[in-house]
Order: sequence, then C-alpha cells, then structure tokens
Amino acid sequence: MSIRLKALVEVLGGQLIGDGEILLSGIAPLDVADATHITFLSNPKLKSQAAASKAAALIVSENDNPAIGAEYAGARVVTANPYAYFARTAQMFAAQTEIAPPAGIHPSAVVDPGAMVDPTASIGPHVVIEAGAKIGEHAVVGAGCYIGRHAVLGAQTLFHPRVTFHADCRIGARGIIHSGAVIGADGFGFANEKGVYIKIPQTGGVSIGDDVEIGANTTIDRGALSDTIIEDGVKLDNQIQIGHNCRIGTHTAIAGCVGIAGSAKIGKYCTIGGAAMIRGHLTIGDHVNIGGGTLVWRTILEPGEYTGVYPIAKHADWEKSAAIVRNLNTMREKIRALEKTISQLTENLKS
Amino acid sequence: MSIRLKALVEVLGGQLIGDGEILLSGIAPLDVADATHITFLSNPKLKSQAAASKAAALIVSENDNPAIGAEYAGARVVTANPYAYFARTAQMFAAQTEIAPPAGIHPSAVVDPGAMVDPTASIGPHVVIEAGAKIGEHAVVGAGCYIGRHAVLGAQTLFHPRVTFHADCRIGARGIIHSGAVIGADGFGFANEKGVYIKIPQTGGVSIGDDVEIGANTTIDRGALSDTIIEDGVKLDNQIQIGHNCRIGTHTAIAGCVGIAGSAKIGKYCTIGGAAMIRGHLTIGDHVNIGGGTLVWRTILEPGEYTGVYPIAKHADWEKSAAIVRNLNTMREKIRALEKTISQLTENLKS
Amino acid sequence: MSIRLKALVEVLGGQLIGDGEILLSGIAPLDVADATHITFLSNPKLKSQAAASKAAALIVSENDNPAIGAEYAGARVVTANPYAYFARTAQMFAAQTEIAPPAGIHPSAVVDPGAMVDPTASIGPHVVIEAGAKIGEHAVVGAGCYIGRHAVLGAQTLFHPRVTFHADCRIGARGIIHSGAVIGADGFGFANEKGVYIKIPQTGGVSIGDDVEIGANTTIDRGALSDTIIEDGVKLDNQIQIGHNCRIGTHTAIAGCVGIAGSAKIGKYCTIGGAAMIRGHLTIGDHVNIGGGTLVWRTILEPGEYTGVYPIAKHADWEKSAAIVRNLNTMREKIRALEKTISQLTENLKS
Repeated sequence: MSIRLKALVEVLGGQLIGDGEILLSGIAPLDVADATHITFLSNPKLKSQAAASKAAALIVSENDNPAIGAEYAGARVVTANPYAYFARTAQMFAAQTEIAPPAGIHPSAVVDPGAMVDPTASIGPHVVIEAGAKIGEHAVVGAGCYIGRHAVLGAQTLFHPRVTFHADCRIGARGIIHSGAVIGADGFGFANEKGVYIKIPQTGGVSIGDDVEIGANTTIDRGALSDTIIEDGVKLDNQIQIGHNCRIGTHTAIAGCVGIAGSAKIGKYCTIGGAAMIRGHLTIGDHVNIGGGTLVWRTILEPGEYTGVYPIAKHADWEKSAAIVRNLNTMREKIRALEKTISQLTENLKS
Repeated sequence: MSIRLKALVEVLGGQLIGDGEILLSGIAPLDVADATHITFLSNPKLKSQAAASKAAALIVSENDNPAIGAEYAGARVVTANPYAYFARTAQMFAAQTEIAPPAGIHPSAVVDPGAMVDPTASIGPHVVIEAGAKIGEHAVVGAGCYIGRHAVLGAQTLFHPRVTFHADCRIGARGIIHSGAVIGADGFGFANEKGVYIKIPQTGGVSIGDDVEIGANTTIDRGALSDTIIEDGVKLDNQIQIGHNCRIGTHTAIAGCVGIAGSAKIGKYCTIGGAAMIRGHLTIGDHVNIGGGTLVWRTILEPGEYTGVYPIAKHADWEKSAAIVRNLNTMREKIRALEKTISQLTENLKS
Repeated sequence: MSIRLKALVEVLGGQLIGDGEILLSGIAPLDVADATHITFLSNPKLKSQAAASKAAALIVSENDNPAIGAEYAGARVVTANPYAYFARTAQMFAAQTEIAPPAGIHPSAVVDPGAMVDPTASIGPHVVIEAGAKIGEHAVVGAGCYIGRHAVLGAQTLFHPRVTFHADCRIGARGIIHSGAVIGADGFGFANEKGVYIKIPQTGGVSIGDDVEIGANTTIDRGALSDTIIEDGVKLDNQIQIGHNCRIGTHTAIAGCVGIAGSAKIGKYCTIGGAAMIRGHLTIGDHVNIGGGTLVWRTILEPGEYTGVYPIAKHADWEKSAAIVRNLNTMREKIRALEKTISQLTENLKS
C-alpha cells in the first residue's frame, strides 16, 4: 500500500525535483504529514508552514516553488494546479485500498428478464431492475437500489446503496449517485379547479450527462412532457431538490439543501451556495455565483456574485432591526419631511 | 395508442365544435402540437399563438372561444377551465400506456401472516409488511417499501418504491406517496434535565385523508400523544418536513423543501411556497398564501399573500445594505437628532 | 397495561403525597387526563388548570406544590423537574406496549460471514451487512438497512427500517437512527481545474458517540481525511445535512431542515433552530442558541441567542420594504446631506 514518488509523477505529470525513489504511504495536510507522506501547498499564505513541513515530498505551484525550494529539504513536484494534483494523488492512493464489488447479479436481486445487464456490471443484494433497463459496462448498482423500466446507466456508473432511479431516466458514463437519492419522481404539477387539485401526469424523464455526481437524499423530478436535464460534469451535494423540467448547465456545482423550482434554467460553470432557493421559470446565466441561503426570485444573466440574506445578530438587536425594517417606509417619509422643512427654511432665510 | 376526440368529450364533457372523428395521438403545448395532437389555451395572452397552432384540436374557455373560432381551423372543445381539462385529457392518454403492476405478493416480499392484503393489491419485491397492517383494494406497494404494524392503506393507494410507512399510520383512498418518503418517524420531543435530553416517547400516529399526494423524501412525524393530521386533497412536494402533531387543512398545497415545526396548524386552501419555514405551535388560517423562502414565526389568520425574504443583490451591494441594516438603529437616532435640531432652529428663527 | 403509582415512584423517585395504590392507565395532558391518568404541571402558568384537573395523580414541582395541594384532590408526585419526570413516566408506559423484535438474523438478510453480529441483536428482513461490521448486544437493525464494511453499532442501538450506514462509520451505545438517514456518504469535495471538478476521495469516517438520536432522512457525510464527529447525547431532527469534518458538541440539539457545511465546529449544549444554515469552516461556541431560519456566516463564540431572518409581512408591504432595503445606501446619503445642510444653516445663523 505505497507509491513510489517517481511512479506518481509518471502517471500525473509535473516536474520532479529531488529523490524520485521515495516510498509514499499516503497524502496528508501540511501540518500533519510526516516522513512517509506527500503533502501539498495550494494556499500561498501557508508558504512558511510548507517550508517547515516534515513531509517526504511537496506538491507546489511554479510561483511558490522558488521560495519553498530555498528552505524545504524534501522532494518537490512542481505543477500548475497543486490542489488538482492533490486530488489526483489522493485518487491514486484511494484506488489501492478500494475493494471492487464482484461482477454479476446477487442472487437476492430481482432483475426482469427484459433488462440488459452488462456481464461486467455488479448488481448488489436486494436490487430491483425492471424490464427494458440497461446497465452499462463496469457499472455498480449498490444494495437495495431500484432501477425503473427503460432506465439507462452508463459505463462505470456507481450507485451507492438505496438509490431510486425511475423509469425512462438516463445517466451517462462515470456517474456517481449517493444513497437515498430519488431520480425521476413525479414533478409537482396540478391544475386547480374550484380549489381542488387535479394531477397532471408527469411523462417526461430525467436526462443526466457524463461525469455527474449526485448527493445523498437529493431528489430530481422527471419532466412533465419533456425531460429534466442535468448536463455533463454537474456536481450536486446532498438533500438538493430539483423540480421538473429544470436544466442545469455543464460543470455547475450546487451545495447541500438547495431547492430549484420547476422549469428554472441554470447556466454553465455556476456555483450555488448551500440552502439557496431558486424560483421556477427563471434563468440564471453562465458563471453566476449565488451565495448560501439566498432566495433567487428573478432572472440573473450577468456573471458575478449575488447574495440576499439578512444579517445575523444577537436576538435582542435583531428584534430592534426587524422592527425598523418593518417601518422603513415611515423612516423614508420622515426624511422626505425633513428635506422639505429644511428647503423651506433655507428659502425663508434667503428672503 | 390514440383517442378519438368524440370519445374524449363523451368522458370529460365540454362543448365540441368541429369534427369529433379526429384521432388524437396525445396532448402537446401550443407551439409544439402538430396535426395529431390536442392542445389547450389556458393563458389568454397566448390567444394569437393558439389561433396559429397546428394542433388538430384545441381546448378553450368560453371567453376565448369566439376570438379563436374566427381564425383557428381545427376542432374545439369549449369548457370552463381549459387547464383542468388538459390535466384530465393528459390522464386519459397516460392511462393508455401505463403498465399496471400485477396483483399479488412478490415472492421476495416478507408479509406477516397477521397482515391483511386485499387480493387485488400488488405487493412488490422486497416489501416488508408487519402484523395487523391492512392493504386496500387495488393498492400498489412498490419495491422495497416498509409498512409497519397496524398501518392502513386505502383503496387504490400507490406507494412508489422505498417508502417507509410506520406503525399506526393511515392513508385514505387514492393516495400517492413517492420514493424515499418516511411517514411516522418519531417526533422530535425531549425533556431537558440539566442539559441532558430525555426522550419523550412518540405514541401518536399519522392520519392522512383521501386523495393526498406526498413527494419524494418528504417526512411526516408521528404525533407525541395524539395524531399528526393531513386532511383530504393535500398535495405535498418533495423534501418537506412536517413535525409531530401538525394539522394540514384540506386542499392545501405545499411546495418543495418546506419545513413545518411541531403542533403548527395550517388551514384549508392554503399555498406554501418552496423552502418556507413555519414555526411550531402557531396557526395559519384558511386561504393564506406564504411566499417561497419566507419564515413564518407568528400566527396568521387573515387570508392573503405574505412574504419575508431579503432582497437579492450583487454581493458588493448586499454587503453595503447588510451593514446598514445592522445599524438601522443608528440611522433612526440620526433622524431623530435632525428632527430635534430643525425644530429648535425653526423655533429660534421665529423668536 | 397499567402501573401502580407507588411502583412508578419507586423506580423514578420523587416525593409521593396521597394514595400510592392508584392504578394508572397512562399519562395525559392536564386538560385531557381523566381518573385513570397521571398528568404533569411543567408550566407554572397552568396552575389553575392543574388544580382543576380530573387526573388521578399529578407530577408537580416543589415550587408549585403548595399552591396546588390546597385545591387539587388527587395524589401528587413532587419532583425538581416535572417535565423530565413526565418523559420518564411516558417511557415506562411505552415500554409496556413495545414489541421487541426477535433476536437473530432474518433469513432474507444478507450478512457477510466476516461480519460480527451479537447473538442478542435483531437483524430485520432484507438487511445487508458487509464484512468486518460489528453489531452490538441487543442492537436492532430494521428492515432494509445497509451496514457497510467495518461499521460499528454499539449495544442497544436501534436502526429503524431503511437506514444507510456506510463503511467505517461508528455509533455508540443506545443510539437511535430513523428511517432514510444516510450516514457516511461522500463529503462534497472537489478540486477545480479550468472549470472542471476533480473528485477528492473521502476517506474519513463518521464517529458518533453514545445516546445520539438522528432523524429521518438526515444525512451526515464522512470526513475527507479524518472523521466527522458527533459527540455524546446529540439530538438531530429530520432532514438535517451535516457536511464532512464537522464536529457537533455533546448535548447539542438541532431542529429539522438545518444545514451545516463542511468543517464547521458546533459547541456543547447548543440549540440550532429549524432550517438554520451554518457556513463551513466556522466555529460556534458552547451554549449558543441560533434562531430558526437564520444563516450563520461568521464564527460565534459568545453564548447567547442569535437570529437573522427578514420580518414577514403582507406581500404588498414586503415589496415596499424590500425596495427600500435595496436603496438603504441612498437613504444614508440623504441623511448625511441633511446633516451637512443643517450644520451649515446653523453656522450661517450664528454669523
């Protein structure tokens, strides 16, 4: 369970300075790493900490390398993006201890004869796969998952235990879905007739691209007539709710507890902070960053950072501020009255 | 898989104008519909789009019919509420392609001999049903559901896969519960003794009326002593949390991610917008509409629309506003000081 | 199914005044209790209601006892904390009707031969337990739960149906986890390289102390390198999200729908109100109470109550206030201008 530094650099690239024969047992943060670890400097403010690190090797940027090199005694890997290099290094170490589930279908799984399961796929205990579903090469379907009719799982997709993936939903290659996620439940669609709700059948699906990760207990509703769409590379954290007919643009990342109401369109390369809520039928353009807890109730096309949360305060202070906020109109009226009085006063003095 | 227009009107009513023999393949929006579709005009603003639609038939209101009739060449169904008619039409088309799960108990299900399952009900793979539970006529219990002791499912109830429905919970006829929902977990009840929490047993149940729909991963807690109550016709979206001993009034609709704390009473015909949060032990009257993201911390009895969310802004602007909000008290003091100064000034000038 | 008052006091303590031979059928609130019930007075405001109660016995504090004793005819149990006494009494009654699941492994469960299940533990139908997992004495694992590799469940732990408890997670004695909870899914960790996210393996676990309760559909992510930590006595309601490497201090209680982002540290004896959201990498000290719906975006070390939610209003009033909040800067400028004008005016008048 160790990797020689030389072998790491051969796979991941970067410029090696120092002894490539070092055996590494793992990756660790600057302050924790010891002589068996590789560490990384991604935040230039920690330069002195890096220089003093006991790690056997350090991943460092071209910018920071000269200053570090003067003091740090271990080997260095110089690369454009040390944090990305750290992620890939950690993946290499994790792969060493990962236990791949066995290919084949567990005897307790209930797989419809009309489903197509690739022989290299692993289907766990108590899984249910309905007719017409397709499970791709080296896909892993964890214990207790449910895969509906005509659902499609791309190659190397990993479903953790207890995922629900309904009929006519599709996910591309290398997708990861965490436990408790529900993909393709009915969208919330009703016609109101004299106060009573009449259900509108939800007959679209959910279409998910390649390299998408979906967090635990996250829900993505199926479309009403056409599909809900999650584009390539999207990363969704836990407990996110995405309504019917939304579209989430490629390489957008959404933090936990976010809610996105039906038919909202989110652009590419966006970030949505935790617990933000996005109204339905609006558009968020590319490269927009929404702050945590913010309610977005209008279309935002201009790239940039947006926030809308009330400032936290000691409860007693908050009570005062909230009372004033409720009466801001009165305050505005008072200012207008003052302006008028002063202008008259000034007028009177002139005459 | 097609429906003759005449047959549709015979079932759903409305006034047919034009050729009833037309064969319809489905329903589609105004701009997408072609010569095999029926479409609908529910928003009067889209009248010109409706007049130009290629659809074989159009569902239209009595108000809009005369203007449309002059231009639109296809058949028309005139009805009081075109959107409700659309919903019912869509239901008829959906019913044609729906595959009813087979009646009977899947061999992998574990059903206690003391449970009563109607022979017309369908019990999916890996379902567990405890002693004393009753499953009504034509009910469908999807794969992996758990039904606790003495739970009752009304006729034609549909549980999607992986619903948890605990002991002593009841749902009426035609209920729909989506995957991952948990009905009847313990309410959050503790007595605090010197900082340590002592659990208060939650011995009530959850009582759900007829025609209720409950979204994916929604949770409704059992009552502490008496039941939590969801009345007829209530529609709940995904990821809603309803605390113990709440009561939700008939035909109220609640959007995704809403939280309702224990013992809150919500009236009839209310709407609660997504991610709104409602405090415990308060009352919301009938016909109250709460805006998305709003925190309700006091009783609201008067019907109407209520909102309470901080305005979203560019992050830099938000920072300025938030800083001022924190100091609104200072601003108020300044205005008071100004008022005093001016009043003295005016006094001095008079004398 | 009844308890003699004398027997109750023998187990739970307190000073008995009156007839200890009374047979009690259960516990009920002051206004509902009849001659077969014991009731409790925890809120001094309800003293007159208590005095008039028809209950056979009353749990009362030392403070309230003298006033009540003069009027109330039934037996009394005098104790320092009547609400805690009520909780324990309710537990005694609940224990009488509780049906303990049978020890042993249900034949439909899939338990790896390398797992260690105590013979007194109860493993329900369709449970999956992976290699190296340890299930303690008298633990109950409900139907459809998933227990990952090397996971550890302490003695008397109760998992309701459909809990997911991933590899390398541990929970101490007397823990309760409700249905749909997911413990140990991957934290949300990515390195961004030219807009594309690279997954950072999440190799830590989740470490949970003794006497912890976790609500339905709550998610707690595993740590990135080290563990996410939930200390003894913590109580978590439903649909809470706790990010990787958080630490929640002992005897802290968190209400439903709360989100806590990665690496946040919450102190001991805190309360977090429903739907509050806590940013990552910050610290909340001991004895801090956060109001419902509040977004916490900075470290809070001083004990006390904190709130930050926008006041709810009729929608039309909210629109006015929100518009002013967006322009608070303008208001401040106007006040400054007024101050200047008045000061000049005053200056001019002097000269």
